[in-house]
Amino acid sequence: MQLPSALLEQAVAEFSKLPGIGKKTALRLVLHLLKQDPDKVRAFAESMVHMRTDTHFCQRCFNISDSLLCSICSNPMRKQEMICVVESIRDVIAIESTQQYNGTYHVLGGIISPLDGVGPDQLYIDQLIERTRTGDIKEIIFALNPTIQGDTTIYYIQKKLQPSEIRFTTIARGISFGGELEYADEMTLARSLQHRMPVDQLKV
Amino acid sequence: MQLPSALLEQAVAEFSKLPGIGKKTALRLVLHLLKQDPDKVRAFAESMVHMRTDTHFCQRCFNISDSLLCSICSNPMRKQEMICVVESIRDVIAIESTQQYNGTYHVLGGIISPLDGVGPDQLYIDQLIERTRTGDIKEIIFALNPTIQGDTTIYYIQKKLQPSEIRFTTIARGISFGGELEYADEMTLARSLQHRMPVDQLKV
Repeated sequence: MQLPSALLEQAVAEFSKLPGIGKKTALRLVLHLLKQDPDKVRAFAESMVHMRTDTHFCQRCFNISDSLLCSICSNPMRKQEMICVVESIRDVIAIESTQQYNGTYHVLGGIISPLDGVGPDQLYIDQLIERTRTGDIKEIIFALNPTIQGDTTIYYIQKKLQPSEIRFTTIARGISFGGELEYADEMTLARSLQHRMPVDQLKV
Repeated sequence: MQLPSALLEQAVAEFSKLPGIGKKTALRLVLHLLKQDPDKVRAFAESMVHMRTDTHFCQRCFNISDSLLCSICSNPMRKQEMICVVESIRDVIAIESTQQYNGTYHVLGGIISPLDGVGPDQLYIDQLIERTRTGDIKEIIFALNPTIQGDTTIYYIQKKLQPSEIRFTTIARGISFGGELEYADEMTLARSLQHRMPVDQLKV
């Protein structure tokens, strides 16, 4: 694809660096911006720089935040004795949108994955252990993806925290709501049989 | 979707304004930028502003350009006596990528479409007529989308240029290469029968 302007070409190249954006999509987006008012394009650009340079990681839970403590950690209405351990900020957003959780979070920044060169030291695990030192934490809920790496991470953190009075739990694994048994993989089906639960726990 | 940072929320809102980018995709792109080096995000942002404020429309053909005349209009190797009339810059890029055309272009900036409130005055039609005044133009090729609006635009421009020595042509319409007859719509099939061509014109 030969573009008539070097500046256009550069803008397309920048957009193509974003995940899931190919050359054709990038061109469509750039040509859209080209048609906009220069002030609007400037607002778009400034908002990206602003977001990148002026947001912080929460000092306590490493969620993204506009101030030193995020809005969840600094909210006295949230149960500070409960920590939900997640891999990324995106998981915080997903759980928050269920409106079913009223505790705090701890964002690890990844999961232990030796194949990808990610060890415990690259994650915010020490900071999580530090948070439990106060003795106020009653429960740690692991909300990690149900993969080998996720399970390894849970195992590692739990081991590091022993001996402890803290209750360790993980989000339930099983057949997705609305899912069909025949299409579930064997591992999921086997585990959901193994961890079967009393019918009276079902809530609609 | 509740986001933990107002700056993040603003960046997501800005991205969502782009065509085909929903809230979820916008969040994915913004979180990707958040993980990048601040300098890279700045480069991304500056490249957009740069592209918007420092590119011009070519004075002659209204293609996008880094200088007053675009690289096609200022190229002495291109046949300046041939003008290919297109709707948008994207069409120039599409035709250029075929590497089959060696003339110049004229970008109308749209097509006549009364239903969308686009009349001849909003398009660069007068400038096209002006270009033909020199008497050097030998052929005008209309490469507009084969729709009612496209045909109306062709008809309007041709009428405006009469009487004239210029040869008016339009890109061939018919069954797409690799297409299947049974799936072609009736209009296309009917027209491709009507405008049938000698077999010896087929080139592989």
